[in-house]
Amino acid sequence: MSPRDGSRSHHPFGKAADILVRQDAPFNAGPRPERVQASFVTPVDQFFVRNHGDVPDIDPRTFHLTIEGRVKRPFRFSLEEMRRLPKVTVAATLQCAGNRRQELIEERPIPGELPWGMEAISTAEWSGVPLREVLAVAEPDAAAHHVELIGFDEAERHGHRFAFGGSIPLDKAMRPEVLLAYEMNGQPLPPVHGAPLRAVVPGWIGARSIKWLSRINLTEAPSENYFQSKAYRLFPPQTGPENVVWDEGLMLGEFNVSSVICSPGEGETVAAGAQTVRGWAFAGERRVARVDVSIDGGSTWLTAELEPERSRWAWRHWEARVDLAPGPCEIVCRAWDSAAQTQPEGAAAVWNFKGYMNNAWHHVRLTAG
Amino acid sequence: MSPRDGSRSHHPFGKAADILVRQDAPFNAGPRPERVQASFVTPVDQFFVRNHGDVPDIDPRTFHLTIEGRVKRPFRFSLEEMRRLPKVTVAATLQCAGNRRQELIEERPIPGELPWGMEAISTAEWSGVPLREVLAVAEPDAAAHHVELIGFDEAERHGHRFAFGGSIPLDKAMRPEVLLAYEMNGQPLPPVHGAPLRAVVPGWIGARSIKWLSRINLTEAPSENYFQSKAYRLFPPQTGPENVVWDEGLMLGEFNVSSVICSPGEGETVAAGAQTVRGWAFAGERRVARVDVSIDGGSTWLTAELEPERSRWAWRHWEARVDLAPGPCEIVCRAWDSAAQTQPEGAAAVWNFKGYMNNAWHHVRLTAG
Repeated sequence: MSPRDGSRSHHPFGKAADILVRQDAPFNAGPRPERVQASFVTPVDQFFVRNHGDVPDIDPRTFHLTIEGRVKRPFRFSLEEMRRLPKVTVAATLQCAGNRRQELIEERPIPGELPWGMEAISTAEWSGVPLREVLAVAEPDAAAHHVELIGFDEAERHGHRFAFGGSIPLDKAMRPEVLLAYEMNGQPLPPVHGAPLRAVVPGWIGARSIKWLSRINLTEAPSENYFQSKAYRLFPPQTGPENVVWDEGLMLGEFNVSSVICSPGEGETVAAGAQTVRGWAFAGERRVARVDVSIDGGSTWLTAELEPERSRWAWRHWEARVDLAPGPCEIVCRAWDSAAQTQPEGAAAVWNFKGYMNNAWHHVRLTAG
Repeated sequence: MSPRDGSRSHHPFGKAADILVRQDAPFNAGPRPERVQASFVTPVDQFFVRNHGDVPDIDPRTFHLTIEGRVKRPFRFSLEEMRRLPKVTVAATLQCAGNRRQELIEERPIPGELPWGMEAISTAEWSGVPLREVLAVAEPDAAAHHVELIGFDEAERHGHRFAFGGSIPLDKAMRPEVLLAYEMNGQPLPPVHGAPLRAVVPGWIGARSIKWLSRINLTEAPSENYFQSKAYRLFPPQTGPENVVWDEGLMLGEFNVSSVICSPGEGETVAAGAQTVRGWAFAGERRVARVDVSIDGGSTWLTAELEPERSRWAWRHWEARVDLAPGPCEIVCRAWDSAAQTQPEGAAAVWNFKGYMNNAWHHVRLTAG
């Protein structure tokens, strides 16, 4: 089946018939641009899925979460006990660090990684317990600087099978927006999104929002799990599989500023004259300050109208009215964050051999006629 | 006197003979690139000066700082009382939002603003009282969201004379790195740098580190002072004096990621073959993760060697060994921050009519021979 073929009507895990599937096993898929644009909160059946192994089968009646490591009071929680702690809801955008990898691949091949278009991003209302409430019970000791999160799911890399995991610094873990979530959009968390319990780390790469949580381990240093210590690192452009030193890349965490045009879509023919361009912008830990749109390749710009900020931790949809002359044209967008930081111009300038964190200007080529 | 003429031996305020003067009154000046590069901490006589009015004459014996507005306990502090509070030292880089404006001016004129090269940046060890200690005494009430800082210095704009001021959000004001400083590099704060007491807001534009502090005012909204509400905003490229709506620009605060080549210098002739390129990188609230250097205009890169991080709030010097073929050449640098954010490629892409926040790739044109 072609990744771009959305015609089959049944996907695993109750996903919508028109979702874009990038891989069948493990299942990796995300919403088409028009679905991304359709609503601030992504419906569960459209929410993107980035799995590294099979969805584990966990019995919620016997489920326990273990909290251990550099804490004064290691303990185990049942789901029942978890639900007695304060429940909060945070609307947060999750995005895969590999979103928009396809544009990098068009610069230079990136073998062995999923060729995500712009569909590895979605927004949900997550409900659960702030991680810091659980940490407060465990009492991190003075040597605790990182919070390792380990899932029940297993991945296989280089002939080894191991649990998916990663870590976030204790500072971030103590912030009120970081949740252990058991609901998504007001419904019980579905199995494919991490039931019965997952982490949600707003503003950070999706890989840190560990699903199917089994264990929380307070540590002095970042996790030694493969997906923290080797994968999800940003390497310089001159680095490839042949010369990589895995410890030397930038360990990814916080997101950079990015924006995307969702409509019109790549390759479309639209009427010449007034058109509305729509998309989203997202700035991770920072705020989105402005989105610029150009119809002349970035020589001149107009300012898009941003939707009000509905959540500190979510994307903002935007739209801009443009006037298209008949013929081929290219529309470009770029966002600015609250630190007056904008996106780099070209994908060539951000290419890296694992294909992460592409936040170059986004281009859509059209014909107006 | 030409701004590039450093030959006169006496500057006001004890500044070094070779400092680059951009304006005589008010006095605005900064260190030459080789001085910037010479040490992690900038000597006081080289530290850049960005003043908007005359240096006020304040008697430290009668000086009081007032804390008022949305607080439960408004009060006044003498310097003696201030010195009894906990004293901390933070090594922090300050940079003017207009640093590197000259490169923007080369794209399109920016009348009425100082044509800073790359000298509006320096690093000092600041000692004083954490602002939050003072705020804790005053007890901000529930409506306090911003901390307005007002100086004794006066500026004249559009026919009005008023005190220089600005504000920072209460969240930032409560962070331990934000100081009310009365020492600089272990010596009493000199008059030109804000004696007897100034704010130091690490990671933020220099304009928020208010000098000659007279008053702290807790408020619901950002300061209405001209330098917060109208100046120091980032406007879109299509905005100019003829169509500006002052309230609509991005109110500047946190710094974006930037880097600069300090040596070799622009226009120099150097020996062909192995050369060492040196400079600094700075990421504001974030960390510097990597610096790339190119000798082919950005087609290929090598990774610079970064000095160890000496302070969470300061620049990092770097160096890279390059091999130059005989003839004209252009060296380029760019930095990456801890959120995998890099600098935009060209000054044209970040041009704005007030000339702020230029963090485009930095270029130096040389002849190797």
